[in-house]
Amino acid sequence: MSDLNDPDVRALLEAPNFAVISTHNADGSVHSTVVWMHPEDGAVAVNSAIGRRWPSNLQRDPRATIVVAEAANPYHFVEIRGRASATTEGAEQHIDALAKKYLGRDTYPFRQPGEQRIKFLIAPERVRHVKQ
Amino acid sequence: MSDLNDPDVRALLEAPNFAVISTHNADGSVHSTVVWMHPEDGAVAVNSAIGRRWPSNLQRDPRATIVVAEAANPYHFVEIRGRASATTEGAEQHIDALAKKYLGRDTYPFRQPGEQRIKFLIAPERVRHVKQ
Repeated sequence: MSDLNDPDVRALLEAPNFAVISTHNADGSVHSTVVWMHPEDGAVAVNSAIGRRWPSNLQRDPRATIVVAEAANPYHFVEIRGRASATTEGAEQHIDALAKKYLGRDTYPFRQPGEQRIKFLIAPERVRHVKQ
Repeated sequence: MSDLNDPDVRALLEAPNFAVISTHNADGSVHSTVVWMHPEDGAVAVNSAIGRRWPSNLQRDPRATIVVAEAANPYHFVEIRGRASATTEGAEQHIDALAKKYLGRDTYPFRQPGEQRIKFLIAPERVRHVKQ
C-alpha cells in the first residue's frame, strides 16, 4: 500500500489534476462527480456548497473514495479511500485557494447567491497508486 | 435527466476520454479505478481481465457508476449509473478495439500470460451530464 507521502502520490495531489469523488447515496448506489482537491495535513481536502448531493451524502455517510489521475497520462492515478470530516471554518478561503490552483484566480468566480461553502478532509485509510 | 443519445454525451463517450468506474467492494466501500470505455448498443462497454478487483466486484454486485470527463476540460463530464452484464464472448476483440481507440494500435499490447478478458455492458439507469 502506498501513502500520501509517496513522492509520486504527493505530486499527483499537488498538481492541478482533477479528482473524481464517489460517495454513497441513501439508496445504496454510488454518486460520482468531478472535483478540485488539494492535500492538507495528511488528508485530501475538497470543497462544495452545503445542500448539494455529494456533500449531503458525506454528512450522512462519511465514507469516500477519490481518484486523482494525471491530466497528461490518466493511467497514472491514485485511489484514496477514507472518511470525511466536514467543517465550514475556512471553507470560503479554501475554495479561493482551489480557484488559485486550478484557474489562477484569487477569488472563486462561481459563487451562487446565498450558498455556504463546506470543506471536507478525507483522511486516507487505503491508498492505491497505479503507474502504467 | 440526460441520456446516451444526447449529442454532447455521445461525443464524450466516442472520444478517447478516460473513465473512472466505481463498484461495490464486499465490505461496502467503493472501489474506483481508471478504465477505457466505448458506447455500444445504448450502453457503455468496458473491459478487464477475469479475477481483478473491479470485474470481480461487478460479478458479485452489478451496480456500477462511471464518470467520463472531457480530457481538455474535465468539468465537462457525464456520470452514468447502471447495471453491468458480463460476457467473455468478443471480449478479446473488444480490448483490441479499445487499444485502437486509445493507443492507435491494432492489438492490445498489455496482455498478461494466461489472462482471460471479460467485457461488461453497463446499461444506464441514470445519466447526469454536467457542462461547466
